[in-house]
Amino acid sequence: MADLDRLSFNQMTAGKATLREVIDACRRSGIEWIGPWRHALGDDPAAVGRELRDAGLRVSSLCRGGMFPAATAADRRKRIDDNLRAIDEASAVGTDLLVLVNGPAPDKDIDAARCMVVDGIAAISDHAEKSGVRLGVEPLHPMFAADRSVIVTLGEANRIAEQFPSRQVGLVVDVYHVWWDPEVYREIARAGERIFAFHVSDWIVPLPDPLMGRGLMGEGVIEIRRLRQAVEAAGYRGPIEVEIFNEPLWARPADEIVGEVAKRFQEWV
Amino acid sequence: MADLDRLSFNQMTAGKATLREVIDACRRSGIEWIGPWRHALGDDPAAVGRELRDAGLRVSSLCRGGMFPAATAADRRKRIDDNLRAIDEASAVGTDLLVLVNGPAPDKDIDAARCMVVDGIAAISDHAEKSGVRLGVEPLHPMFAADRSVIVTLGEANRIAEQFPSRQVGLVVDVYHVWWDPEVYREIARAGERIFAFHVSDWIVPLPDPLMGRGLMGEGVIEIRRLRQAVEAAGYRGPIEVEIFNEPLWARPADEIVGEVAKRFQEWV
Repeated sequence: MADLDRLSFNQMTAGKATLREVIDACRRSGIEWIGPWRHALGDDPAAVGRELRDAGLRVSSLCRGGMFPAATAADRRKRIDDNLRAIDEASAVGTDLLVLVNGPAPDKDIDAARCMVVDGIAAISDHAEKSGVRLGVEPLHPMFAADRSVIVTLGEANRIAEQFPSRQVGLVVDVYHVWWDPEVYREIARAGERIFAFHVSDWIVPLPDPLMGRGLMGEGVIEIRRLRQAVEAAGYRGPIEVEIFNEPLWARPADEIVGEVAKRFQEWV
Repeated sequence: MADLDRLSFNQMTAGKATLREVIDACRRSGIEWIGPWRHALGDDPAAVGRELRDAGLRVSSLCRGGMFPAATAADRRKRIDDNLRAIDEASAVGTDLLVLVNGPAPDKDIDAARCMVVDGIAAISDHAEKSGVRLGVEPLHPMFAADRSVIVTLGEANRIAEQFPSRQVGLVVDVYHVWWDPEVYREIARAGERIFAFHVSDWIVPLPDPLMGRGLMGEGVIEIRRLRQAVEAAGYRGPIEVEIFNEPLWARPADEIVGEVAKRFQEWV
């Protein structure tokens, strides 16, 4: 069983609540980690960081940078500039990890878009290192290949990460996105110290909705504990983030969501 | 451009029409190949086979066998028996190819289910060879891993096929299921003479529905021609099957569907 002190509550698991409400709910439940999103940081990420620390919370990661592929060089430059700002925000809010979700392709050429991802990371990795921020490449499920992320396997994420020093670029392993992959255990072992984060949720059958139908741990078919043990065998000892986009869950009060997540974390992770 | 005489019209592309209606529409459009489904063969597949030949149609494949994983040995035996019948039906209707879709797992253990697929194929491969029927393992898109097929990559399909002689077991490459894979071109080259079939459709953005939202060629983001050229470079010269599950398309008359498919085949495949 995973220790509850490793649970990080991703803000979007209570997607309708304000960050302040999520902070309060986490504090009342004794949660120690939180994963905020950029849109919640406003103009002063450092102030939000102080607020989180005052509530006894540590920040496991900031969601999210990435989205490097674009049709023109000027647009790709804008994406890079936005990622440089995201790095500054991560540093200001007090986390050493920026999650990268790596965009759809601007046209049918998915291979070219994958190259743009590598170019984008190369353009920001020095600034990230100077800022004390590591970059976590998160492969999304292949059903998002056309509209959210051209990086859809741990194998591809490993190949990208390995082009950079392991202190700079690694992987975000989210069970919802990778559980189906016959290579998942081999690629987790290959990632080793490059595993920068581990996210849990579940895959409900039948799937209510690709984006908004993620399940709470135990509601679906994912071998969550086996995957958790695999990332630990590969060397990962950090927080375990719960990130669940689910409309019916979002309709519940933040305290109830945090309580349910903590209970299921102990039962299934 | 692919020659129109290689177009095979999968029966389910006109999913609301009877097989007779599909046959007539193909004949009127000069289509030379058809891909029927088992449910349309009734009690006398040989008679259906004669009807198809009389209409000048050749049968590219029969859909479908597979679905080997099951919770008990008795249930797995039933699935194997059903596949032996499917082989007989394929032979009777006049095709040398049975498409295998390889079932969901009976529980969370997807690795065990993948072993059941290999065991199932091993149990039917001799009967298939004696019957002049090859077995085509079709990996489905990973979004179907929990409810339709534990085989979700060409890599896994190749690993399975390679455990059998290449005259017995090969792959069905369907662009809708494999286009997202960063390994797709390497795995197509690896498959070589084991490519037993090539299916085309398209991936619409945003995806209307995982099962029922496939697009006509040209409606989506798949590099169909590049993939067609890749299977040809690997040695495939057989029919190219159009298999599209799409409710609005199904609402149209069979003649219109066949005409539209033929037009888009010449334009995009």
